[in-house]
Amino acid sequence: MKKLVIGVMLGDMTGIGPEISVKLLASGKAAELARVVIIGDARVLELGMRDAGVKLGYRPYSDVEEVRWPAEALPLVDLGNIDPSRIPRGEVSPESGRLTGETLKHMINLALSGKIDGICFAPLNKMALHRGGWDFPDEHRMFAELTRHRGVCGEMNVIPEFATFRVTSHVALRKAIDLITPQRITEVVQLADRTLRAMGHSAPRIAVAALNPHGGENGLFGDEEIRIIRPAVDSLRADGMGVTGPVPADTLFLRAKRGEFDGVVMMYHDQGQIATKLLGFSKGVTVTAGMDIVFTTPAHGTAFDIVGQGKADPGGLEYALRLAAKLAAARTTGARDATGK
Amino acid sequence: MKKLVIGVMLGDMTGIGPEISVKLLASGKAAELARVVIIGDARVLELGMRDAGVKLGYRPYSDVEEVRWPAEALPLVDLGNIDPSRIPRGEVSPESGRLTGETLKHMINLALSGKIDGICFAPLNKMALHRGGWDFPDEHRMFAELTRHRGVCGEMNVIPEFATFRVTSHVALRKAIDLITPQRITEVVQLADRTLRAMGHSAPRIAVAALNPHGGENGLFGDEEIRIIRPAVDSLRADGMGVTGPVPADTLFLRAKRGEFDGVVMMYHDQGQIATKLLGFSKGVTVTAGMDIVFTTPAHGTAFDIVGQGKADPGGLEYALRLAAKLAAARTTGARDATGK
Repeated sequence: MKKLVIGVMLGDMTGIGPEISVKLLASGKAAELARVVIIGDARVLELGMRDAGVKLGYRPYSDVEEVRWPAEALPLVDLGNIDPSRIPRGEVSPESGRLTGETLKHMINLALSGKIDGICFAPLNKMALHRGGWDFPDEHRMFAELTRHRGVCGEMNVIPEFATFRVTSHVALRKAIDLITPQRITEVVQLADRTLRAMGHSAPRIAVAALNPHGGENGLFGDEEIRIIRPAVDSLRADGMGVTGPVPADTLFLRAKRGEFDGVVMMYHDQGQIATKLLGFSKGVTVTAGMDIVFTTPAHGTAFDIVGQGKADPGGLEYALRLAAKLAAARTTGARDATGK
Repeated sequence: MKKLVIGVMLGDMTGIGPEISVKLLASGKAAELARVVIIGDARVLELGMRDAGVKLGYRPYSDVEEVRWPAEALPLVDLGNIDPSRIPRGEVSPESGRLTGETLKHMINLALSGKIDGICFAPLNKMALHRGGWDFPDEHRMFAELTRHRGVCGEMNVIPEFATFRVTSHVALRKAIDLITPQRITEVVQLADRTLRAMGHSAPRIAVAALNPHGGENGLFGDEEIRIIRPAVDSLRADGMGVTGPVPADTLFLRAKRGEFDGVVMMYHDQGQIATKLLGFSKGVTVTAGMDIVFTTPAHGTAFDIVGQGKADPGGLEYALRLAAKLAAARTTGARDATGK
C-alpha cells in the first residue's frame, strides 16, 4: 500500500508534545507507518530534542510540495511562528494556545488542498486554545468550522479494546437527555459503522448504550429506551447494520472489554469516558470522526507535571499516528472506488 | 475481639449461592471471620454440597439461641421452607424469589431481636424477588421497609480499591438529576464517612462526583456543580469532613483506583457502576449502608450460566462475610461506646 503523507504537529509547546514527537520520530516507528512531515517551528522541534535527550536530523522546507519522498532527513515545514523562549512551560499559556490553533489551521489548509493526507497532533491544551481566542466547545467543533464540514461528525475515543462514539458530548447532562433522538442515534451509529470499516473491521459489531440504570428496567426507571433508543436500533438492524442495544451501560463496557463489540455508541460524555479512561488512558487515541480530513491525537493531555523531564511516553502518539495512516488510507481507497479508478 | 454471630443465607437456590456458600464454609475461612450460622433449608444446603462436590458436617437447630459456641459442627437453623426438587434451576423462579424473601425476612427478625449480629446473603435474583411478590425497586428499599428504618440509607458498593455511595440510585436519569440537592449530598457524605470509619478508615478520604462533563467546565456545561454540589461539599469540609469535590467523573475513578480516595459519592447509578464493575466485578460487595442491621452480599449475581458446574468462585462471598463481621463489630463497639459500657 502506498504510504500517505501525514502532517504531524508538535502539540502545545508548554506540554510534553515536542518531547513525545521527537521520541516517536527517533524510534523509526513513525517512518514505518507513514511519510511524516512536521508542520511547526524548528525551535519547538529543537526544544523537543532537548526534552527527549535525542538529536534528530531534519530538513526545513517552506512548503510540503517541495519534499521529495523517500526523504533523507525528517522534513519540517517551518512556520517560524512560535518562539519558545517567550513562553513559560508547564502551565496554561493563552499565547501558546493561540499559536497552536494557528498551526492547526495552517495544517487544515494543507489538507484541504490535498498536500497532506491526514493530521496527527501531539496534545494541545483545551483551556489554552480557548483563552487564545479559539472560541469552540472543543477542538472537534473548531475543525468542523474551519473545514466548513456539513453533516454529522464528532469525537471518537479509541482504545485497543474498542472505540466509542457520542450521541451527545460537551453539554450539560440535563440538556444531553433532551438531545437524544432516534435521528441522532441513527446518524451516530452510521458514523460508527463507516469509521470502524475504515479502521479495518469488515463487519463492525456496534453496541448502543442505554440511558437509564438497568436500561430503564422495562420502563420502571425511565422510558427513553422504549420510546427512542430501541426503535432506532431495531430500524438500523433491519437495514442490516450489526448493532445491538440498548445495553445497560454498566454491563456494556465489561462486555466490550471482553471483545464482544468493536464500537460503543454512548448517550452522554461521562458514560464512555469513565470506561475508556479506566481501561486505557495512556494508550488511547481521540479521533474527529466523520470528516473529510483525518484528525487524530493521543487521549492524554499536556501533562504539565512532567514537562521537560524526559520521561513522557510516546505510546499514545504512536497509536494516533498509526490510526491516522490507516484512516487516511481507507479514505483514499474509498475515494478511488467512488470515482471508479 | 469477640467474634460476632453472622447469619448466612444461601441465596436464591436457582443460582450459584448454595455452591459458593458451601465452598466458603468448607474452606475454614468463614470460621476465622465470624460465628457463622446458616439460616435456610437443609435440602438447599445439601444441594450446595452436591454442586460444590464437598461434604460439610452441619447440625440443624430450630432456633439460633440453642447454638452453643464454639459450635462443633456448622449450625443450621432449618426453616424447612424450600424444596429444591420442586424448583427448576438456572432460570428466574418467582416461587424461589418469594421464598428467598421469606428467608431474608426471617433473618431480619432474628437480627432485630438481637439473636444474630449481621446478615450476609449469597446472590439473590432481583427479578425473581420482584415476581415473587416483594414489590420494591431493590432489596435495600425492602430491607428499609421490613426494619421500619428511618433516615438515610442505601446501596454501597465496595471493591478492594474504594467504596461508592449513591445520591440517587434506581430511578430514571432525568429524575435523578432533579433529586440531587445539597441536603441529600450532605446526608450521603455523612453516611459514607460513618460507614468508612466502621470499615476501619480512621480519617476517610471522600470524593464527591460532579454531574456534568468536565464538572460543568465552570458553568459552561451545566450549573449543578456551582449551585448544588460545591456548596454542599464546602460546607461539609468546613465542618471538618475529609471531602473533596465536585470531581469530574471520568478522572475521579482513575484517581480512586490509584488510591487517592476511600469513598466516592456518586450522583447517579451508572456513574459509579460503570467504574466498579470494570474494576472489580467478581470481588465486589454490595452493602446496605446506614441501617441498624448489617447487610452484605457479593456484587455478582446468580450466574445462571454456570449453575451446578462446580466452578463458581466463592471470593465475593468471602469478602462479603468479612465486611459483615467488620461492620457488625463496629456497630457493637459503637453501641457500647454510646451506652458507656
